[in-house]
Amino acid sequence: MKYASDVVERAINEFSKLPGIGRKTAQRHVFFLLKSTDDEIDELVRVLKDLKEKVRHCSLCFNLTEVDPCPLCSNPERDRSMICVVEEPNDVVAVEKTGEFKGLYHCLGGVLSPLDGVGPDDLHIKELLARLDEQTTEVIIATNPNTEGEATALYLARLIKPLGIKISRIARGLPVGADLEYADEITLSRAFEGRISL
Amino acid sequence: MKYASDVVERAINEFSKLPGIGRKTAQRHVFFLLKSTDDEIDELVRVLKDLKEKVRHCSLCFNLTEVDPCPLCSNPERDRSMICVVEEPNDVVAVEKTGEFKGLYHCLGGVLSPLDGVGPDDLHIKELLARLDEQTTEVIIATNPNTEGEATALYLARLIKPLGIKISRIARGLPVGADLEYADEITLSRAFEGRISL
Repeated sequence: MKYASDVVERAINEFSKLPGIGRKTAQRHVFFLLKSTDDEIDELVRVLKDLKEKVRHCSLCFNLTEVDPCPLCSNPERDRSMICVVEEPNDVVAVEKTGEFKGLYHCLGGVLSPLDGVGPDDLHIKELLARLDEQTTEVIIATNPNTEGEATALYLARLIKPLGIKISRIARGLPVGADLEYADEITLSRAFEGRISL
Repeated sequence: MKYASDVVERAINEFSKLPGIGRKTAQRHVFFLLKSTDDEIDELVRVLKDLKEKVRHCSLCFNLTEVDPCPLCSNPERDRSMICVVEEPNDVVAVEKTGEFKGLYHCLGGVLSPLDGVGPDDLHIKELLARLDEQTTEVIIATNPNTEGEATALYLARLIKPLGIKISRIARGLPVGADLEYADEITLSRAFEGRISL
C-alpha cells in the first residue's frame, strides 16, 4: 500500500537512499518536512544545490573545499614541513579538533583494500609523493587503526622511507578513560609495544 | 572545528534538524550526497519542492493528497457507511496494508493531550461530526492504544453515540506470534475483556 500522494511516496524513497535510513525513518523525515515552513525547505534545497555546485576537492590535499587550494593548504601559518596523511576529509576535522597538529594534510580518498578492489592507483598516493619536497621533514600516517589502515600505512612507509623523509604512525593503545581489564589483547599489546619512557 | 567548506557545514546543520539525526549521521548523509550523481541530487531537490508545493490535506478526511478530495474519499468503490478514525496519515497506510477495511478514513491530526496543550479544537473533530450523515452506520476508532489514544476514543464515543451511530474501537490484545508469558498485565487483561466466542 502506498500513500494517497505520489510525491510523499517519492520523497520517502529518496530519503530511504541515505545511508542508515530505512523506510520508517524516511517516513518520519518526510512528515517532519511536511510540517516545516517554506523557508526551512528552501534552505535545504539551497544547501543541496550548493553541495553539488560549490564543493570540490582541493587539488593539493584532496580535502573538501570551495576554493582551490583549500584554506588549510593556503594558510601561511601552517607548518609546511609536516604532512598528516588521512583517509577521508572527515578525518581532517577529527585531527583539527585536537589542536595538536599544525602542519598540512593529505586525504587519500580511502585505504588499500584488495577485497573491495581498491589498489594504490585508486588512492591519491601519486599526488602525495609529488608533494614531498625538501621542505618536508615528516609524514604522519593517521589512517584508521584497522587491517586496511595498517596495510596502507606500511605501503606508504615503504614508498616514503627511501626518500629520506621521517615517517611516523599515530600511536595505538588504550583510549583515555578505558579500563585495562576490558581492553582487547591486540590493543593492549600495541599499548605495550608503544610504551614511552617517563 | 569546522570543515574547510562552509557549504558542508551548512548541509550538516540542515540534516541534523531532521528527527533522530545527530551530527555524525548528518555528516554521513552529506558525504553520501557529495558522492551522488547530479541526477540524484536533482531528484532530491525536485521532490522537496513538490512536497511543499503539491502535497496538502484532503478537505474531507485530512489525509495527505495531491488532489482534493483525496483518491480514497473520491473512490466510488469505498464503503461510505463506515468511517475509520485515525491519528495521522501514516495510520491510514497501516490500515490500508491489512486490506481489511473498505470504508472511508478520517485523520484527526493528533490526539487529545492536555499536557501538551492539545484540546478538541486542535483536532479535526468538528469536521468528523460534520461528515456523519444518514449514510454513516459505523465509526471505528483506530487511535493508538495508549493513554492519549484511549482518552480520545472515549471523548469521540461520547460525542457520536447520541447521534445513534454505532461506534467501535479496534481490539486490544496479544499481538499475533506473542507469548502469553511475556505479555504485560494490561494487554493481557484487555485480551480477556475482548475475548470472542468461538
